Amino acid sequence: MAPTQHPLDPLSATEIQNVISIVRKTHKNVNFHVVSLHEPRKAGMTKWLAERSNATKPPRVADVSVIAPGGKVGDGLVDLGKSQIVQWEWVNGRQPIITVEELQRVEQVIRTDSSVIKQCEISGIARDEMHKVYCDPWTIGYDERFGSNVRLQQALMYFRPNIDDCQYQYPLDFCPIYDSDKDKIIHIDIPKTRRPLRREATINYYPADINAKGGYRTDLKPLEITQPEGPSFKLNGREMEWQNWRFHIGFNYREGIVLSDIRYNDKGTERPIFYRMSLVEMVVPYGNPDRPHQRKHAFDLGEYGAGYMTNSLRLGCDCKGYIRYLDAEFPTRDGNIRHIKNAICIHEEDNGILFKHTDFRDESGIVTRARKLIIQQVFTAANYEYAIQWIFHQDGTIQPEIKLTGILNTYSINPGEDTDGWGTEVYPGVNAHNHQHLFCLRINANVDGPRNTVFMTDAVASDEPVGSPMNPYGNAFYAKKTKLATTGQAMTDYDGATVRSWDICNTSKIHPFSKKPASYKLVSREVPRLLPKPGSLVWKRAGFARHAVHVTKYRDDQFWPAGRHVPQTSGETDVGLTEWIGDGSESIDNEDIVLWHTFGVVHFPSPEDFPIMPVEPMTLLLRPRNFFSNNPVMDVPPQRATTASQILNTTNNQMGSPKL
Amino acid sequence: MAPTQHPLDPLSATEIQNVISIVRKTHKNVNFHVVSLHEPRKAGMTKWLAERSNATKPPRVADVSVIAPGGKVGDGLVDLGKSQIVQWEWVNGRQPIITVEELQRVEQVIRTDSSVIKQCEISGIARDEMHKVYCDPWTIGYDERFGSNVRLQQALMYFRPNIDDCQYQYPLDFCPIYDSDKDKIIHIDIPKTRRPLRREATINYYPADINAKGGYRTDLKPLEITQPEGPSFKLNGREMEWQNWRFHIGFNYREGIVLSDIRYNDKGTERPIFYRMSLVEMVVPYGNPDRPHQRKHAFDLGEYGAGYMTNSLRLGCDCKGYIRYLDAEFPTRDGNIRHIKNAICIHEEDNGILFKHTDFRDESGIVTRARKLIIQQVFTAANYEYAIQWIFHQDGTIQPEIKLTGILNTYSINPGEDTDGWGTEVYPGVNAHNHQHLFCLRINANVDGPRNTVFMTDAVASDEPVGSPMNPYGNAFYAKKTKLATTGQAMTDYDGATVRSWDICNTSKIHPFSKKPASYKLVSREVPRLLPKPGSLVWKRAGFARHAVHVTKYRDDQFWPAGRHVPQTSGETDVGLTEWIGDGSESIDNEDIVLWHTFGVVHFPSPEDFPIMPVEPMTLLLRPRNFFSNNPVMDVPPQRATTASQILNTTNNQMGSPKL
Repeated sequence: MAPTQHPLDPLSATEIQNVISIVRKTHKNVNFHVVSLHEPRKAGMTKWLAERSNATKPPRVADVSVIAPGGKVGDGLVDLGKSQIVQWEWVNGRQPIITVEELQRVEQVIRTDSSVIKQCEISGIARDEMHKVYCDPWTIGYDERFGSNVRLQQALMYFRPNIDDCQYQYPLDFCPIYDSDKDKIIHIDIPKTRRPLRREATINYYPADINAKGGYRTDLKPLEITQPEGPSFKLNGREMEWQNWRFHIGFNYREGIVLSDIRYNDKGTERPIFYRMSLVEMVVPYGNPDRPHQRKHAFDLGEYGAGYMTNSLRLGCDCKGYIRYLDAEFPTRDGNIRHIKNAICIHEEDNGILFKHTDFRDESGIVTRARKLIIQQVFTAANYEYAIQWIFHQDGTIQPEIKLTGILNTYSINPGEDTDGWGTEVYPGVNAHNHQHLFCLRINANVDGPRNTVFMTDAVASDEPVGSPMNPYGNAFYAKKTKLATTGQAMTDYDGATVRSWDICNTSKIHPFSKKPASYKLVSREVPRLLPKPGSLVWKRAGFARHAVHVTKYRDDQFWPAGRHVPQTSGETDVGLTEWIGDGSESIDNEDIVLWHTFGVVHFPSPEDFPIMPVEPMTLLLRPRNFFSNNPVMDVPPQRATTASQILNTTNNQMGSPKL
Repeated sequence: MAPTQHPLDPLSATEIQNVISIVRKTHKNVNFHVVSLHEPRKAGMTKWLAERSNATKPPRVADVSVIAPGGKVGDGLVDLGKSQIVQWEWVNGRQPIITVEELQRVEQVIRTDSSVIKQCEISGIARDEMHKVYCDPWTIGYDERFGSNVRLQQALMYFRPNIDDCQYQYPLDFCPIYDSDKDKIIHIDIPKTRRPLRREATINYYPADINAKGGYRTDLKPLEITQPEGPSFKLNGREMEWQNWRFHIGFNYREGIVLSDIRYNDKGTERPIFYRMSLVEMVVPYGNPDRPHQRKHAFDLGEYGAGYMTNSLRLGCDCKGYIRYLDAEFPTRDGNIRHIKNAICIHEEDNGILFKHTDFRDESGIVTRARKLIIQQVFTAANYEYAIQWIFHQDGTIQPEIKLTGILNTYSINPGEDTDGWGTEVYPGVNAHNHQHLFCLRINANVDGPRNTVFMTDAVASDEPVGSPMNPYGNAFYAKKTKLATTGQAMTDYDGATVRSWDICNTSKIHPFSKKPASYKLVSREVPRLLPKPGSLVWKRAGFARHAVHVTKYRDDQFWPAGRHVPQTSGETDVGLTEWIGDGSESIDNEDIVLWHTFGVVHFPSPEDFPIMPVEPMTLLLRPRNFFSNNPVMDVPPQRATTASQILNTTNNQMGSPKL
């Protein structure tokens, strides 16, 4: 292992092991939920970034969350240089992130729990079939009957006739509740209407099933992508350089990929754009009002972690061509190390035409092709898969893109039963409930420096009536800009009719030609509103999802918009984003700001999504506007560039040459 | 040349030549504006498609528009089998599509016109520099001073210091008006505020300029895409077969690519989806209210033609990998043939993950990669380039995608002059006006048969309040469906907050599991409203752009939503779509229907777009919902498929083997 190069590098396995040893000296027998880089204070970090050779390197500090026997939760900081705990607190009524080990434990418990076995029998499952009973354990979210003090998971129940079957086609109708501390089932939610197991014909996606049903198609010819001279990027430690971009690629248990200190080399000057960018939270509310389905609104990042759930990627499967991988190291709950090989993949793709123009007079013209760089991870949240791509374009555009695939969360339905519009029967006996996937993108802006201002832009017609002197033909329209001067004003929603966008501006950097401030524009079009109503459980817990955009003033450690410990928050008190915004009076005009953008999709399932879902993509753009003096990619070598004079010379030569 | 195979194949060069000869027997000295396939009547065509060997092949008929000396416009049909004109009409007050020859003529005229030379002198251009004066000739659109009877073009004026310079950086402030019939300038629009030519430093995108300013970047490594066994598609004549898809690829002067008889082979049954799909019109309104800029609202398809303006494509430039090209043949205005080599390119691309799932218990799982098929053309509309991609996905999704590139239309601005918000000074002296690009997609639906119904779908919260018995936790939401039963009801707008979509349904084909009708869903998110106001000149002329969706009952020959002859329509009388809709009372419930969808972008220019614009993409999806019995791509060979039992066996074997 190379020594840690960059203060934002994730903790290495050795560092994690050291932290665990240090904590255990004081707190024996604790279970580790978080041992992750405590990111350097921005003030010190900024100094180091500005002058790496001379500035003091920020200390390596670990952020730690543990659970002690009895359920006591400890939060602390461990300074690796000093080899000591520098901060520690025991907190009540908080539940740290669920670990993979906890998720895997529940299934073992339900199979031998007598009350679960009884319910399985009621559902039509024999006692000797209990090894065919599976569950997807979810945090309970919040259930007012149990509150926040007891650490709980709800077991979404399934049956697998055969170990290789897709379980989601055999949902069971009851929901056991598991207490982590007691390691047992403490309650079972049983619906009024019982829905016994329906042993319908199996539908699967593995080769045995495909072969039994006609086999694979044979008409798909190979398509190969090669880079004989290697990739165009350079990775120095975890710092990426590609096509004028430079940034650091971090990774943690919760957000997964974190991109920091994002800069663009503009003709020799490295200009900062964003200090830090990541997905910090998401929520997947389901729309079925029947108890206990209200509890299905996973905060996949805060409750389970996009890092903890990340896939080990494989060449040719998840990506094609020349790939660089980065691994990840996490603590296990019992204080060992979990190594995830190929947690991140990095590769380039051809991206079609970058720019093109042909003069209609003589067909002189230019065509230049585009390349893009993709930093990708894929994580599995029980049934769903999320492929997260951070795409960098040569022209200064950053494009976060998310591809949803995997399997629908399903519930049982009786023959002839109505879904009441809250779901779709995607297969006999399988009710896939309506849901949303709402992601929260956090951007600590740094557009030409740390003091930025956000404006909301709406495309609107002139107020002047058709036929008036100022608008004689009625065609006048303009970009209406609204400054979001306070955190309260910045709580803004999407407007599709005005193709609303948000500009992160540096109002002290005025473009010499346009006289407009240097900016990055957020262009995001998949922005449904949160469908659970104001005052609903989801609305209370997912404050970040109440608006498409929130803006706050930057403060160290304000990362988690739904709170540091998300499982079992009630939403009754403001935590995270709603707490930081408070009365909304704080100025965010020309300040170090964080923009929180919630976007996503509404998914009304259909049979095409079952038993496994073809990718549903969603994307957004962060585009430089009035940032570069002009098109910044004209120096990308063109595929064809033929000037008018070259055409003219060729024509003249042809005309001048003797006829054949 | 192979004989014509398919009744929807474009007219061959021979056929065009025959038509011209036939017309000239009766009408000498006419100029040809249109000689294009008159598509077979649907009734006969449907019979032939159903039973090709036995049914009568529809006759080959040409649609013809000519202009006779004096400006008289002739519209007719020529039956190629009968070698005769079968329909002919002389029409008044109509102006057929502008030809390439007409566009190219104007520049020659302005350079020698004394009134233009005088204006150039006023602008600061010497008489001996007139060869450096250029113009982009546009149809005049509509100007009430001249009406519709005189065939006019407006010349948007530019100066090119050097033949290889980008002219758009040196706009001139006046606008000559050219009469095609008289072949001379009949008027010059001169602004009140004069803006003399500003000879600012040149900015260009050709190698000489890039090399003079630091040269090309050298760090982009080659990326190669190969298909050693060739492509996965089969092209029989112009009928495409690929991954269960089958459809015909047409091409004409106006729409460019036309896709017809689109079917999907669903486990041996060819199911029809769309009878015909194309872009049929577009409008690019500019938002500057000052005269004469109100005339800048190009209908690029109806006024100039996406076919007539299409580029000859080149391997490695416009597309990469294994490419099949199709050429195009058009008449010239004087009755000869213009051959466009490589007018259409067809190729496959890898499309990342098609579907993936990993079981969190044991990492058993599957990953299957996606392929897509792209049918592409690129056309140049004076300054702008439009790359039109018709993308077919394996899962039954069709994705029209448009990439905008090329150069901004520009106007002059004085030093210190305010744009008043109607444009952006993208370079000293260069004012790029605000504009929209609005495209009209026409779909003649055929979802499991010709009788379809359109529903509008909105994602909405339950009406029941939070805490009520029907919505105790407030999370209930559903897909609200509104049937569009008449053409009047179908005039609907986009709603971003409800992520509105439109479903084209066959209500007589009910899905066996979901009990919902077979449908194709239009998912389109780039749907700005028409910003020119109701009652404005653009609003009157571009009826199709007043709403995101219109639906009409299918009738033969109802193709052109802004009228057959678009140049110089006043918009004062209903033509095209508004005429067909009339009072809006016609039933479109369970009928043969055409859906017209207007989508696009609003473009507030910025310096990054100059002097040539990096691609701005926009896209939409047509997705099968409740159409297939389940995921239709499970038979695509996976990259990885490892079942739980395989994992278990491997683990057991490893556990059972002696330790090293």
